[in-house]
Amino acid sequence: MSRLTATPAPPYYAVIFTSERTEVGDGYTDTTARMLELAATQPGYLGVESARDGLGITVSYWDSLEAIAAWKQNSEHLAAQETGHMTWYSTYKTRICRVERDYEFRVG
Amino acid sequence: MSRLTATPAPPYYAVIFTSERTEVGDGYTDTTARMLELAATQPGYLGVESARDGLGITVSYWDSLEAIAAWKQNSEHLAAQETGHMTWYSTYKTRICRVERDYEFRVG
Repeated sequence: MSRLTATPAPPYYAVIFTSERTEVGDGYTDTTARMLELAATQPGYLGVESARDGLGITVSYWDSLEAIAAWKQNSEHLAAQETGHMTWYSTYKTRICRVERDYEFRVG
Repeated sequence: MSRLTATPAPPYYAVIFTSERTEVGDGYTDTTARMLELAATQPGYLGVESARDGLGITVSYWDSLEAIAAWKQNSEHLAAQETGHMTWYSTYKTRICRVERDYEFRVG
């Protein structure tokens, strides 16, 4: 199964979260899995794409800026953001974007 | 040195290129390196962030939609896109985005 998200026709919104990790991993894997699970239940969620090889890039897709703002304020997510800030990440950058257009290619 | 791109204050533009590879790797590494090098010389280029672990995500940043359009039409880049389409990628999706706002965190 493809790991590319089947997003609807633009416009929609993307949150690009780019990060570098510290050496401290306690709870990181479990919390990341839980956040992916929890995000998928939020109103306006369209999907997520993620890769890490030193640099980590996670892009989540949403149908509105309001959906992104609500997810950012989710209480369990706020706790995870705080631990990420204090413990897991040495640097990160979050970019809120409006997807203006897109095109794709799939074999078969 | 951080692999996060130091982009200017929004608005600016991002191209999110998400891909899955075929088994065919001939020339892929060299061409990817060359494209990163060539992109960095283009007018309006702001930087690039890339990670792959099965799924590949490359986000390039630009100061305008015109800069993105010009890069897409660069002749050497067009040849690489064609080989990517025919040979290296089983699926890919390109999303052109306007970055509306961003925030970051850096230790030290």
